[in-house]
Amino acid sequence: MSCVVRSPSQQPLDGKPAARVLVAGASGYAGALAARLVWRHPHLELIAVGSRSDAGRRLDDLYPHHRVPLELAELDPADPPECDAAVVAYPHGAAAPLVAALRERGVKVADLSADFRLADRTTYESWYGEHGAPQLFGAAAYGLPELHRDQVAGAELVACPGCYPTATLLALAPLAAAGLIADLVVDAKSGVSGAGREGGDRVKFVAADENLTPYGTGGHRHTPEIGEQLAGLGYAGPFTFVPHLAPLDQGELVSCYITPTQSLDRGELLDLYKEQYADEPFIELTDTPPGVRDVRETNMCRLHVTVEGGVDAPSDGVPRGAPQPSRKSGRSSRSRAGEGASHPPRVLAFAAIDNLWKGAASQAIQCLNLMLGIEETEGLL
Amino acid sequence: MSCVVRSPSQQPLDGKPAARVLVAGASGYAGALAARLVWRHPHLELIAVGSRSDAGRRLDDLYPHHRVPLELAELDPADPPECDAAVVAYPHGAAAPLVAALRERGVKVADLSADFRLADRTTYESWYGEHGAPQLFGAAAYGLPELHRDQVAGAELVACPGCYPTATLLALAPLAAAGLIADLVVDAKSGVSGAGREGGDRVKFVAADENLTPYGTGGHRHTPEIGEQLAGLGYAGPFTFVPHLAPLDQGELVSCYITPTQSLDRGELLDLYKEQYADEPFIELTDTPPGVRDVRETNMCRLHVTVEGGVDAPSDGVPRGAPQPSRKSGRSSRSRAGEGASHPPRVLAFAAIDNLWKGAASQAIQCLNLMLGIEETEGLL
Amino acid sequence: MSCVVRSPSQQPLDGKPAARVLVAGASGYAGALAARLVWRHPHLELIAVGSRSDAGRRLDDLYPHHRVPLELAELDPADPPECDAAVVAYPHGAAAPLVAALRERGVKVADLSADFRLADRTTYESWYGEHGAPQLFGAAAYGLPELHRDQVAGAELVACPGCYPTATLLALAPLAAAGLIADLVVDAKSGVSGAGREGGDRVKFVAADENLTPYGTGGHRHTPEIGEQLAGLGYAGPFTFVPHLAPLDQGELVSCYITPTQSLDRGELLDLYKEQYADEPFIELTDTPPGVRDVRETNMCRLHVTVEGGVDAPSDGVPRGAPQPSRKSGRSSRSRAGEGASHPPRVLAFAAIDNLWKGAASQAIQCLNLMLGIEETEGLL
Amino acid sequence: MSCVVRSPSQQPLDGKPAARVLVAGASGYAGALAARLVWRHPHLELIAVGSRSDAGRRLDDLYPHHRVPLELAELDPADPPECDAAVVAYPHGAAAPLVAALRERGVKVADLSADFRLADRTTYESWYGEHGAPQLFGAAAYGLPELHRDQVAGAELVACPGCYPTATLLALAPLAAAGLIADLVVDAKSGVSGAGREGGDRVKFVAADENLTPYGTGGHRHTPEIGEQLAGLGYAGPFTFVPHLAPLDQGELVSCYITPTQSLDRGELLDLYKEQYADEPFIELTDTPPGVRDVRETNMCRLHVTVEGGVDAPSDGVPRGAPQPSRKSGRSSRSRAGEGASHPPRVLAFAAIDNLWKGAASQAIQCLNLMLGIEETEGLL
Repeated sequence: MSCVVRSPSQQPLDGKPAARVLVAGASGYAGALAARLVWRHPHLELIAVGSRSDAGRRLDDLYPHHRVPLELAELDPADPPECDAAVVAYPHGAAAPLVAALRERGVKVADLSADFRLADRTTYESWYGEHGAPQLFGAAAYGLPELHRDQVAGAELVACPGCYPTATLLALAPLAAAGLIADLVVDAKSGVSGAGREGGDRVKFVAADENLTPYGTGGHRHTPEIGEQLAGLGYAGPFTFVPHLAPLDQGELVSCYITPTQSLDRGELLDLYKEQYADEPFIELTDTPPGVRDVRETNMCRLHVTVEGGVDAPSDGVPRGAPQPSRKSGRSSRSRAGEGASHPPRVLAFAAIDNLWKGAASQAIQCLNLMLGIEETEGLL
Repeated sequence: MSCVVRSPSQQPLDGKPAARVLVAGASGYAGALAARLVWRHPHLELIAVGSRSDAGRRLDDLYPHHRVPLELAELDPADPPECDAAVVAYPHGAAAPLVAALRERGVKVADLSADFRLADRTTYESWYGEHGAPQLFGAAAYGLPELHRDQVAGAELVACPGCYPTATLLALAPLAAAGLIADLVVDAKSGVSGAGREGGDRVKFVAADENLTPYGTGGHRHTPEIGEQLAGLGYAGPFTFVPHLAPLDQGELVSCYITPTQSLDRGELLDLYKEQYADEPFIELTDTPPGVRDVRETNMCRLHVTVEGGVDAPSDGVPRGAPQPSRKSGRSSRSRAGEGASHPPRVLAFAAIDNLWKGAASQAIQCLNLMLGIEETEGLL
Repeated sequence: MSCVVRSPSQQPLDGKPAARVLVAGASGYAGALAARLVWRHPHLELIAVGSRSDAGRRLDDLYPHHRVPLELAELDPADPPECDAAVVAYPHGAAAPLVAALRERGVKVADLSADFRLADRTTYESWYGEHGAPQLFGAAAYGLPELHRDQVAGAELVACPGCYPTATLLALAPLAAAGLIADLVVDAKSGVSGAGREGGDRVKFVAADENLTPYGTGGHRHTPEIGEQLAGLGYAGPFTFVPHLAPLDQGELVSCYITPTQSLDRGELLDLYKEQYADEPFIELTDTPPGVRDVRETNMCRLHVTVEGGVDAPSDGVPRGAPQPSRKSGRSSRSRAGEGASHPPRVLAFAAIDNLWKGAASQAIQCLNLMLGIEETEGLL
Repeated sequence: MSCVVRSPSQQPLDGKPAARVLVAGASGYAGALAARLVWRHPHLELIAVGSRSDAGRRLDDLYPHHRVPLELAELDPADPPECDAAVVAYPHGAAAPLVAALRERGVKVADLSADFRLADRTTYESWYGEHGAPQLFGAAAYGLPELHRDQVAGAELVACPGCYPTATLLALAPLAAAGLIADLVVDAKSGVSGAGREGGDRVKFVAADENLTPYGTGGHRHTPEIGEQLAGLGYAGPFTFVPHLAPLDQGELVSCYITPTQSLDRGELLDLYKEQYADEPFIELTDTPPGVRDVRETNMCRLHVTVEGGVDAPSDGVPRGAPQPSRKSGRSSRSRAGEGASHPPRVLAFAAIDNLWKGAASQAIQCLNLMLGIEETEGLL
């Protein structure tokens, strides 16, 4: 019904015209959201929305709540439209050729696929098959601004992390950098949108509703990505990563169980995280465990870290009125003389993000902002 | 509207009359379900449903889908009605005096509270305060029939496990008994009914819907119960247990991450579990990770165990068409030379139950069946 | 895992062997549930489960919670297996040939498709195309036992009603029979399972979750079925029927707004319904509006009827502490001098069922019980 | 963690400073959202957030996703803080005295309670008891800008409509104004947040999840409000209004069934709505029935109108491949010779809004924008 053809929010930036942005793959969940964020961004102009499956349909017909009144167009991957920057939200494998064509034209690209995330090509090929643009393999900055801000700002091609790596790496970076991780378990839970629009039987309402199930226990695509990045941050040891599908549409929680290389008290732990994240506009350190609802439809990551046996804010699981000392001894499984492994009290780190926002589309915009010299938080607060 | 006053399903058992059963605390979620299961049980007669908060209301007014057409009565804890057996679903602390009064009258009791679950009284008191029936402390069998069948069958008082211990212990018992656990992380997820009818703000729809949150990270009541029981099974070492609240009404999944004392291959692991559980009517070993929906409204526990790096049935996380060998190497984080802890490949064990059924009410009936000499599966299949 | 090959619950009926029952279409939601109900029925033997799409898979692999340990078989519609009775849960159009083949072999059939529900063949063909077994058109009893018990009991072929007609007709039958309906609006709400396993984009979790939407406003297949049946009951006038998709898996609520032919007070209305339904084992008249949760996983229909402006049990919408008389006048929109239509106070009738149970599978078993001379409620309470 | 003390988005408006705005009742769902919208509004400054129940807590502790880093303060209703404008989100009855105090100080007020919505004081008192500021009764503009823009723009006190009246009136206004309504049924469905933070047992997750239930069938508070407003728009006749509680957090759908005073074809109907709403920034006329998900977290109202028997866009309920003419005759219940009421084909109107946004908080900001001479859509697109 609406016949707006230009975003209402566009403003020139320091006298310069808004950057012209293409969103390819705008009929998927993440691409559609990226289109909306570009559409409402004061310094970006959405020049086209591409779709391989739904060309000809209006984006606001497919996703009315995003309210982007543009028609989806079929893109020729070898000859993409002229623009200054692009968000590519194509599936793994399909992204590489389009990204290559865009790069040849000098277009800055934030790519949401796995095609440019990995450093090891053998690993890539064992998971995804032959690479579609080998000349660009390894050429991208890893698009997690909180950990690689300068590289992202200087990059022409950014590989935006998957949602699981985003949350996991933000949860662990300070510990990894300090060499404090001896062993690691990551139990991750994602909303159903994380499985994508073509997610098969398990994304049907009747299958996912009132359900909760682990998956990928024989190996998940995000494991090598997490492994490479953790190694880059300072932890190259073993870890276990298991994702779970939870009955909610958007949102992701990772629960990280870290065996530390040495004993830490909670104060030291908090200092470590505050030091790294104090000035981050999109990270909040919380006193209590975060819920995914707290970050719904935002670019925020809420982090909570604690040491097992340490005292958190009261919760329903905590005994009321019990004397502190006996309570501690009553609670802690550590006081037991173990026959098994002996190690310092475990460190717990929890991160909550919106898998479609910070885990995909809004993080891509955060990267674009940096790549284009725009304020990093623009269009995202 | 209905005016049925006797359960339609009652049948004499081998010529003996049905056992007369009281359900106390029938206005809570677990108690109400226990009342329904007794009501429809062929060899049990539901003689009364007690409630501290809703006396005078009909149970089928409060929980229509259970369809138990009886009025909730206020019970005098010091003078409970005459009966052969009772399910007590009172809160922790309130249960003990009623249980004691019932035991004095010779009534067999399946108690759903924590009052008789723990062996260590100091631990009990540090979590729950003074015990209401110290003469009975330590007198109960632990009501997990798969692990303590004979004790339950011979008991006059059974302490039914909490929902988290039920799932956790079933997931770990074969490994614990074989001395194979060196270290352990348990990440547990429960539906909202697990927090009870009086669960505060977090059990409101607007708070729990589209949410997922860890809690009790400073210590959860079920930790000492799990610790004591694991020790009894053979593992007295350290472990980490973190519960999470998930947006579903009934259901519970525990994801157990076990560092084994020695390398295991998946075949050995499966043999261990098959040996212990092959004949268990309420345990299913599954080839793929279980979902809580698979056990909804049943007394079943579905278990899946695997060794990290082992090959499961294909799942969406597994690369398709990738050559097995490179895929394995691509996937495994273990192949990396770690600076951190070095240990055999981790073992993963997942258990899915319905927290209100196998985690509470139907397990209580399973125990009553054993205590009363009724076929263990009666009324539960 | 289980290797049970015969239902554990089977018992001879009065010395006669259990009836051998085929369930065709057991890989759909309704067919799978029918298979479970037959499997656990004391007097029915489940001899085979057929599937057009999933032959070779185990039914308890596809739907673990139903726990039917049988392999789905491909059926030759022209040569179905020998049996005494069958539940056919094929899509409209595909059902007719199989039903015809079963009938030729003397098999009693409860059919869940629309193929035999309608009396008017032109109407059938305008909605579904050519009929696949014209010789049987009009030969079936309409499988709503509460309204057509004798016909069902004497029938060889029963056309089980759709879920919307089931709830709507039960809600309206007493009024229709008494000639009290002058005009009618039916606003129906169904859970997502009502759209079937192949329901397209709208049955995906991300589309259905947190959503609620009308559909079929240009005409819904159930409208002619409701119209024909209402006419048979005594109301052949106009009505409006609009279905809505609600974010729940199972359950259906119909809200009926009846303009009566004459003024009724609430007492008269209740008497009418009590008279018709007093002895019905699967109908409950309730004092307050029913919720679909109240009938979840049951064969029950909960009905609530009232006259607008009449006084129901207090609810959150009712003013507290307001004087009755002024409250009445304050509340009623009827007291306003209308320029528009003038008619007696509207009658409201609400019916809640589980769309997969009373709206499909369990009602089919209720019909089979009648057709086979088994107690009507057997296997359903 | 954040220590921002001024909204980052504030900008002067045409050289004038931003208006200083108080939000009272910011610990409730609607008040908290209003605070967020003011906080992020370019031309409003949030000077204080008041709460009767949670004073001393941070708003971003209570509702993290709104991210308003201010402490909730206890307000003295007789002596509110100095400001230019206020959003009052107090419960009915409690609002009036505070509003009166604010008005005495010359503060412009958008009130979300029912205290100033009704024109008839007897009606008010029969529902809510004595009025707390009788001197202001009748003094407010009715805050539905699409229908009363000029009054709102000129008002010092605006009574924001309830969520049900908002959706219902927008759905019906063109028909009412044209004198086309002869009779009317409104079946409304609301998400659980509509019942407020203190909604009792029925707002608990375990009660609301997988449920759907009518309520207020004996009279709902919004009925007189709808009645008065419809009368003002041109329809003073009878109508039936029944609200339902649906298992979603935010969102509302009203389904209106209109018996028209004369026959309308769909084209005439659409013209009527386009004429009234063509230029409305917050109303979208849709070709297919709207879902509440389409307007989630927006100030939009999506409207769909059709004439029964008219042809909508294809939907799953529509027969495929059936010849149009026979399909029409097959579908229409109107072709049947009725013994009952005879009237032109019914008109259907559906409106979807977010009950917390357009149904409460964002509509209050829309009103404030008008009252303060700010662009109506500012802060809302």
